[in-house]
Amino acid sequence: MRCPTHNVGAWVARRAAIGGDRPAVSDASRRLDYRAFDERCARLAAVLRAGGVAPGDRVAIVLGNRTAYLETVFAAARLGAIAVPLNARLAAPEIARLLADCAPAALVSEDVLEPLVTKALAGPEAGAIPFRLVAGGDPDAYEAALAAAKPAYEVAAVSPEDPMMIMYTSGTTGVPKGALLPHRKTLFNALNALHFFGLGSGDRVLVALPLFHSFGLAILSLPTLYAGGAVHLVPRFEPHDVWRRVEAERITFFGAVPTMFRALLEALEEPGAPRPDLSSLRFLFSAGAAIPVERIRAFEGHGLLVKQGFGQTETSILCALDARDAIRKAGSVGRPVFHAELRIVRTDTLSGPPATWQDADPGEAGEIVVRGPVTMLGYWRRPEATAETIRDGWLRTGDLGSFDEEGFVTLVGRARDLYISGGENVYPAEVEATFEQHPAIREIGVVGVPDARWGEVGRAYVVLRAGERLDPEDLRRWGRERLAAFKVPADFVAVEALPRTETGKIQKHRLRDP
Amino acid sequence: MRCPTHNVGAWVARRAAIGGDRPAVSDASRRLDYRAFDERCARLAAVLRAGGVAPGDRVAIVLGNRTAYLETVFAAARLGAIAVPLNARLAAPEIARLLADCAPAALVSEDVLEPLVTKALAGPEAGAIPFRLVAGGDPDAYEAALAAAKPAYEVAAVSPEDPMMIMYTSGTTGVPKGALLPHRKTLFNALNALHFFGLGSGDRVLVALPLFHSFGLAILSLPTLYAGGAVHLVPRFEPHDVWRRVEAERITFFGAVPTMFRALLEALEEPGAPRPDLSSLRFLFSAGAAIPVERIRAFEGHGLLVKQGFGQTETSILCALDARDAIRKAGSVGRPVFHAELRIVRTDTLSGPPATWQDADPGEAGEIVVRGPVTMLGYWRRPEATAETIRDGWLRTGDLGSFDEEGFVTLVGRARDLYISGGENVYPAEVEATFEQHPAIREIGVVGVPDARWGEVGRAYVVLRAGERLDPEDLRRWGRERLAAFKVPADFVAVEALPRTETGKIQKHRLRDP
Repeated sequence: MRCPTHNVGAWVARRAAIGGDRPAVSDASRRLDYRAFDERCARLAAVLRAGGVAPGDRVAIVLGNRTAYLETVFAAARLGAIAVPLNARLAAPEIARLLADCAPAALVSEDVLEPLVTKALAGPEAGAIPFRLVAGGDPDAYEAALAAAKPAYEVAAVSPEDPMMIMYTSGTTGVPKGALLPHRKTLFNALNALHFFGLGSGDRVLVALPLFHSFGLAILSLPTLYAGGAVHLVPRFEPHDVWRRVEAERITFFGAVPTMFRALLEALEEPGAPRPDLSSLRFLFSAGAAIPVERIRAFEGHGLLVKQGFGQTETSILCALDARDAIRKAGSVGRPVFHAELRIVRTDTLSGPPATWQDADPGEAGEIVVRGPVTMLGYWRRPEATAETIRDGWLRTGDLGSFDEEGFVTLVGRARDLYISGGENVYPAEVEATFEQHPAIREIGVVGVPDARWGEVGRAYVVLRAGERLDPEDLRRWGRERLAAFKVPADFVAVEALPRTETGKIQKHRLRDP
Repeated sequence: MRCPTHNVGAWVARRAAIGGDRPAVSDASRRLDYRAFDERCARLAAVLRAGGVAPGDRVAIVLGNRTAYLETVFAAARLGAIAVPLNARLAAPEIARLLADCAPAALVSEDVLEPLVTKALAGPEAGAIPFRLVAGGDPDAYEAALAAAKPAYEVAAVSPEDPMMIMYTSGTTGVPKGALLPHRKTLFNALNALHFFGLGSGDRVLVALPLFHSFGLAILSLPTLYAGGAVHLVPRFEPHDVWRRVEAERITFFGAVPTMFRALLEALEEPGAPRPDLSSLRFLFSAGAAIPVERIRAFEGHGLLVKQGFGQTETSILCALDARDAIRKAGSVGRPVFHAELRIVRTDTLSGPPATWQDADPGEAGEIVVRGPVTMLGYWRRPEATAETIRDGWLRTGDLGSFDEEGFVTLVGRARDLYISGGENVYPAEVEATFEQHPAIREIGVVGVPDARWGEVGRAYVVLRAGERLDPEDLRRWGRERLAAFKVPADFVAVEALPRTETGKIQKHRLRDP
């Protein structure tokens, strides 16, 4: 049944009705309670509608972390339109390709990003965008348009399956695809976060991760607003600044990727640095990549517990590890979240229909597949990619992992990452985890490369610790003491740094095709 | 899409997986953590399945408040079957009629209620029930069956729209109808309760209301289990016992009807009564009928806040009044809950399709209608009653109310209660509220009766205060000073007590047809 209650855009309206004076969203220059936030969403909805945005239309967003970001997401939803967050750190040709892909009816951007947008729109690819709105600047066109509009408080009736957002995946495979996310997915993702975080209306969540990624938007911001809590947006991550704001805003939790946590820890332990009052923090949340157990212990030494999560844009958070299991289950990403049905399936059975898929035994690696209300509808205008990824409701995550006897999941890599050497499956994640313990190695990324004899062999890209030099012979010998011979990389290449996504994942496609 | 994640029966399984050692359900003789509760649900599912229960079958329940009650609800759901709670206080012929109506494949009862069940099944009406299971007794057949079963942990794939429960409405109209409730409704009702109660896994909720009513089951117990909290079942309401258990179990909230709260207050203030430690209580929750504002003030004097709610079996809780508004908005039932779209519609427009319904102005009474995921599918096997009640997704509650300017709802009676005297609508609830302030009157119920001149006139049934006597002439004169003449009852009848439902509502049909 189609009704406004299924529309995620109604969340803010409902909160405004039942607790309008509670804080909702704040950024560097603005503090909005739910009533004010609701009114701004309603004004923006009126502006977008007058600009020609109709149900099903796309509304592209090229903004930094500011209230206008969340206003655009909710205003688009209220119109029954589809918000499309675009990565503001992309190059102009990349933005142009994504605009060509989603063909938006409107684009909301901000003054400091206008050079990028203008460049993207200058080429032939992006196509014309009927309606543009620019925040920031002087005068501020976005603010002027809102001030002049009569708020449109009505919320479009939708079905739970109607699309609400297109999020382009960050692209560890190199080809961004638009995950088409329905209202239903955003609700159930919020519920999973609510249960795992123990979210309530008293929470105040700092978001220093960009809102154009699933982590900042779908895992941190939207669930907090669903629960009636407050989101504090930070435009740029700076560790000392984060700790200051935690104290000043009485933040109850925030999320970050492991490299950010390293910087946060260093800032906290910097000699002479002010000691912030962190007593409002209930926990920290790490996702995007594995966080080393020493870092968790270090935070615990400061009285800060670390929860961990694992997911992807297509499904949001899928597994979660509570702080109490952080040490005992180190290396695991936790157990499946509340509203998700997760299986680990033998990869050699995946070519058949789901009914024939076989569950891997505990300890046996397989592909993680998921079914239930947190999955995307498919990839925007890519029926082949959709058909490859979703079968009879089961979504193939492309992540390889295993269950232990207690139901905790450990990742062993990406399915694409798996290579086959002499008929044996090799999971680079396992090889990397082993070599990260070698005293000369700071970071390592392993990929499979063609080999006349073995089909494929491993190639390791290595970032050495300061003062160390590359000794491939020693590394191979050291590896063979710890791993099956077929898993030990055939060659080692020293590099300055590994190519990583903004959320910290190694971009294997850039190693394979440097 | 059909999947186990949409099945309410999965809730306990998920909780067992992610926090199995937390307390789930307890009663007079048993304390179960989520793992143990999950195992018992899975064993019962195996027993019922072996007994022939298939998806879509009804599983009738005639039990008092004990863990077996909730086990049966979840076990039936896991099989894709439909639990049917029956009022254990009904007479045998009434039980027989309900059994004939729902034609269950199985019935779970308990030893002390077996005489009632046997009598109901002895008549020709109920029909044969293929599988019976009796809890309690010595030996305990229910426990023996569970012990012998191999747990069936699998949860049936369902769609959100698949039926999960039939609850017979308590019948202020006199004709019980089975509200067919889908998994979707139970989930969204739990979400509404979660938001309003601020429910979390730390809650410990006492349930002294019978589980065969929506209040005890759908509003208190199921949402608590969804949130991972603990339900403490009390078989029989006794006010001193409730306060003792609040202290002993560190109860965080409980729900009751106003008459129970009167008894609870008297027990608390009884000279010489022990003073329980009530510091664990976050609030009290009152629903079922209006609670007098003096009683709220009296509880506040003991440091206890009172939240209030309004709803019905067909939709569960629809409006909620926070404790902070209890005095300022006294007489209101609060504002619509999070996941519900509620309108108040002019009754003279309701004969047309929903598109033509007109919203009443603030302060103007109309019928409360609701749309969204909390509504029932319809009445079990009563297409005419369903078509009368639900139109284009809008459910007519039959309750009359008005919005104020802040969006708070005040009830003015039942639609059936409205009578028309000389062309004017009269809402008995308004008349009753006025006359309750007369010094001689303790309770009053007003109904319309046929009248040759006016079409209908009011007849008041009055319970007098001790030592007072009925003086109709004085009452009419007193009434005319406060109400329009057409609203003043034409005659007054003194009675010992008013017929009420178990949740405290006056049974108007019994006054109309004594």
